[in-house]
Amino acid sequence: MRDVAVIGIGITKFGELWERSFRDIGIEAGIKAINDAGISGSDIDALYIGNMSAGAFIRQEHVAALIADYVGLAQTSHIPAIRVEAAGASGAVAFREAFLSIASGMHDIVVVGGAEKMTDIGDEMANAVQGMAIDQEWETVFGATYASLHAMMARAHMEKYGTTREQLAMVSVINHRHGALNPDAQFRREINVDTVLRSGMVAEPLRVFDMCPLSDGAATIVLASMDAAKKFTDRIVKVRGIGQGSDTIALHDRRDITTIDATVYAAKRAYDMAGIKAKDVDVAEVYDSSTISEIMAIEDLGFFEKGTGGKAVEEERIALGNEIPVNTSGGLKSRGHPVGATGIAQIVEIVKQLRGEADGRQVKDAKIGLAHAIGGTGGTAVVSILEGCE
Amino acid sequence: MRDVAVIGIGITKFGELWERSFRDIGIEAGIKAINDAGISGSDIDALYIGNMSAGAFIRQEHVAALIADYVGLAQTSHIPAIRVEAAGASGAVAFREAFLSIASGMHDIVVVGGAEKMTDIGDEMANAVQGMAIDQEWETVFGATYASLHAMMARAHMEKYGTTREQLAMVSVINHRHGALNPDAQFRREINVDTVLRSGMVAEPLRVFDMCPLSDGAATIVLASMDAAKKFTDRIVKVRGIGQGSDTIALHDRRDITTIDATVYAAKRAYDMAGIKAKDVDVAEVYDSSTISEIMAIEDLGFFEKGTGGKAVEEERIALGNEIPVNTSGGLKSRGHPVGATGIAQIVEIVKQLRGEADGRQVKDAKIGLAHAIGGTGGTAVVSILEGCE
Repeated sequence: MRDVAVIGIGITKFGELWERSFRDIGIEAGIKAINDAGISGSDIDALYIGNMSAGAFIRQEHVAALIADYVGLAQTSHIPAIRVEAAGASGAVAFREAFLSIASGMHDIVVVGGAEKMTDIGDEMANAVQGMAIDQEWETVFGATYASLHAMMARAHMEKYGTTREQLAMVSVINHRHGALNPDAQFRREINVDTVLRSGMVAEPLRVFDMCPLSDGAATIVLASMDAAKKFTDRIVKVRGIGQGSDTIALHDRRDITTIDATVYAAKRAYDMAGIKAKDVDVAEVYDSSTISEIMAIEDLGFFEKGTGGKAVEEERIALGNEIPVNTSGGLKSRGHPVGATGIAQIVEIVKQLRGEADGRQVKDAKIGLAHAIGGTGGTAVVSILEGCE
Repeated sequence: MRDVAVIGIGITKFGELWERSFRDIGIEAGIKAINDAGISGSDIDALYIGNMSAGAFIRQEHVAALIADYVGLAQTSHIPAIRVEAAGASGAVAFREAFLSIASGMHDIVVVGGAEKMTDIGDEMANAVQGMAIDQEWETVFGATYASLHAMMARAHMEKYGTTREQLAMVSVINHRHGALNPDAQFRREINVDTVLRSGMVAEPLRVFDMCPLSDGAATIVLASMDAAKKFTDRIVKVRGIGQGSDTIALHDRRDITTIDATVYAAKRAYDMAGIKAKDVDVAEVYDSSTISEIMAIEDLGFFEKGTGGKAVEEERIALGNEIPVNTSGGLKSRGHPVGATGIAQIVEIVKQLRGEADGRQVKDAKIGLAHAIGGTGGTAVVSILEGCE
């Protein structure tokens, strides 16, 4: 396989962007990344788009062709445009496909974007779409929701490992603290444990502030073969490893709901490919669609032993300035979660950290970064490992 | 890039399969292909699924994880499962991604399936889904439909090249003649020009028998690196070339609506990669979502000069036994068109032809086959070229 590098990044502000359309935000992120890479449109060999549910959210499928068209590449170079979907892992899976298209030798420079426009429909419909990421036939139809399944995972984790309600809350507190430092984040206010514990109940024990928001937003990355990369920039971030895993789409079929096996397998594959171990990671973006998700992630990724994630959070070992800073962007909770964009946005943050461009939230001497995304309740997981090469 | 081969194929009957679910047909095609390849589940490194709109049709996204789960691979080997979407080209684009995953060296044996369950919702809703393949904001909203846009292409082609109403009808006549020989086809009755001309008007000049049906169905292919392929079978079909192209998603932005530029570019890329020319192709499956689509395809692929496709059809040069047999499966019109499955089903037919397993519809001495799929009205096109290696 050929070596592949990130040479450009772009991201929109995340939030409720009612005045902007799907194609509009897709283009903004794309143009930013192309400018950041210093390439021109004619250098681009292919476009990959991660998007979960444009069909339901904006009644538009075929969105990769749509974006290729609106950035002007369909009419000129008629490039391949590929949409990839894996619920919340859509962007991360698109990143892997874009990586493979270069690693294979088929393409030299590829743009991979993630975009989702979620707030143009009512909350009820948006919740229905979330129900399409889990097992429609054996979960959604019977009333299970994305939130209630996570509540079950939280309860099981609390029961098995003694994880506390306050530890869950601290995930959100730290992510909001980080997100306050990120100008592109949806929610930039710091909160405290009380804010979480006093917020409305969603599915016991999870409250509003345990759950990530619905968001609009887009993020884009320019990938290049290492040879092509060197022609355009010396700010090269190398893709060291990518691993993807799956598990049963329905939660009740899993062997253990306090661990996400898809993450465990994805991480093993990524670490093996990169030739590193969890302790070598300097900064990570992990999937905190709920507070329990982040606690399971930091365990399943091997940052902390299984069952000790809650305590690690309580001790702020994942906060900026400490042992292994996690979600310096604010994570899904504070930066926002436009589903298809999240996997790309996480890598954008890691690249900023590895380039030393993360401003007030910069992790000192960050050399190796990891991004982790999940689809559904863990039917899919992707782990990407990047290394700054300056 | 490593050489890649098809080592297994599987397909369900296409039609209105009301008694069967999406996962059910996905599994049937998958098991057939795995058995045909002679591999076991533990040999499989990854799963790709082409699917357009499960979110709208069955309210389920994240369908690659779903299929990985239901074939038993999510719980055991936790393989990567990737869904790809490009409207009617979804299956073909998934095939390309699966190809790249092996060509890159990442995987050795990959299963790629296409599936769509379209008949569980009303016709009106199904038409709305078709409207998601074209430009929702600048076409669908203003009343343009998939059929009416094709009607415009037909009118332009008739005006510019003198293509006749009867020539259009002959596309359908020949495809039904072929489909009658295919036990898996949705419609297996022969028709004549009158059948087409007397059928109900859809969008002038196109009638019901000019348009492909809505269908349920699934098709699966097992791909392997050439080295791995040789361990399992001597019926090897090599992937010689794959090309993908794009164009504006909206028809009104095209330079010429009597040609599909996405096809022209996809074909050029595929021919270049394969090192062959159009005249070297022995058998082809092309995208006949409407009769005019097939006439444009056989021109844009270089089988016949631009503007002469109608005459070539009238002279039956594309019929079994003649110059270049096209759509021996019956095509979308007669075999059926479960959107996401079509791109894979086309390749299944080509593999049958190249293996000499096409029974009553076998093209004699077929060595090189071509499959061509389109997304929307031509926003995406994919051309795959395969060669029998016996």
